[in-house]
Amino acid sequence: MNPIITAFKNSPDRGRGLARDMRVRWALEEVGQPYDVRLVTFEELKGPSHRERNPFGQIPTYQEGDLTLFESGAILIHIAETRGGLLPKEVKARARAIMWMFAALNTVEPPIMDLAIFQERLPMLEDRVRARLRELSARLGDSEWLDGAFSAGDLMMVTVLRRMAGKGLLEHHPNICAYIARAEARPAYQRAFAAQLAVFNAAT
Amino acid sequence: MNPIITAFKNSPDRGRGLARDMRVRWALEEVGQPYDVRLVTFEELKGPSHRERNPFGQIPTYQEGDLTLFESGAILIHIAETRGGLLPKEVKARARAIMWMFAALNTVEPPIMDLAIFQERLPMLEDRVRARLRELSARLGDSEWLDGAFSAGDLMMVTVLRRMAGKGLLEHHPNICAYIARAEARPAYQRAFAAQLAVFNAAT
Repeated sequence: MNPIITAFKNSPDRGRGLARDMRVRWALEEVGQPYDVRLVTFEELKGPSHRERNPFGQIPTYQEGDLTLFESGAILIHIAETRGGLLPKEVKARARAIMWMFAALNTVEPPIMDLAIFQERLPMLEDRVRARLRELSARLGDSEWLDGAFSAGDLMMVTVLRRMAGKGLLEHHPNICAYIARAEARPAYQRAFAAQLAVFNAAT
Repeated sequence: MNPIITAFKNSPDRGRGLARDMRVRWALEEVGQPYDVRLVTFEELKGPSHRERNPFGQIPTYQEGDLTLFESGAILIHIAETRGGLLPKEVKARARAIMWMFAALNTVEPPIMDLAIFQERLPMLEDRVRARLRELSARLGDSEWLDGAFSAGDLMMVTVLRRMAGKGLLEHHPNICAYIARAEARPAYQRAFAAQLAVFNAAT
């Protein structure tokens, strides 16, 4: 009986070999061990029968007879111990190879994963801001304020928009920039700004 | 008695007028109402006496006689209603000005705040990855594998490093790139990669 591993039926990495079943497949290929694959959907991953294999509902898992393992690092050590070839036999060299496995998983991987998550979400976040500015710019048009005379609505909107100054997004909308400049030119704005800046300067 | 507002003693915006007390200061200046400021430190913000003013431990707050308000939007409406000048008197125009206040706070502000948080953290996340790669590159040097012969340690490390391919960070370390290329050239790697790619192609 070949060991059975689990892998995504629809991998979010779109076949680039970044899903964690790749580690187990590669290790089994290195030692020349044939294997079977059970593909699981995202729904099955979080369902009771897969959670019996892995209580955290993740891939990969490894089943061989009555042994069921999860965690790719643990599976690699098991493959190395039962087939040979992936970890040195000499005690110290073996300890160092295992050390590098943990370095990969616990020291190098966490900041890489954090960065990947942020990088993927950043364009989406920028798009959301761009959409709001586009809508606001279209509504503002050539008007001096949002709805007739200056009001608390303009006051609030300008304080929100100023957070984006100098980030390259407001600059696509000259009418929004002019609107902010008009607000910042109000004597009341300038007195308020100077008052809060004085607090900052006094504290530093 | 002037109304009393609260503001950061050490504003995280460093005096750029982005803290929310700026909204209240500006509104009070627009209507010509003098005010006093109670400055609070970060510790005081989360302490019991400030939480009596605002249960969420935030600035600004507004106190006038026995009235205590928090939420900059609510404070602006109160100022407008008691002093005039910030909201139109005509019913529909007034409703529209209030609508723009909510548009600023609940439609335009949330994506701007999300983006600001991500943008601030992104360079820090990239630095963490750069540091790990620099350390790993120094340790690898001109070696073929991390510690003598190929082992499960190399297998794990390469699968972790591949996540960074094409993002402009690995490319500063030719020895890491060559290390990854050596691993990807192994027949076992290629069989494993082809097997997982076939699953992706079959599913799409």
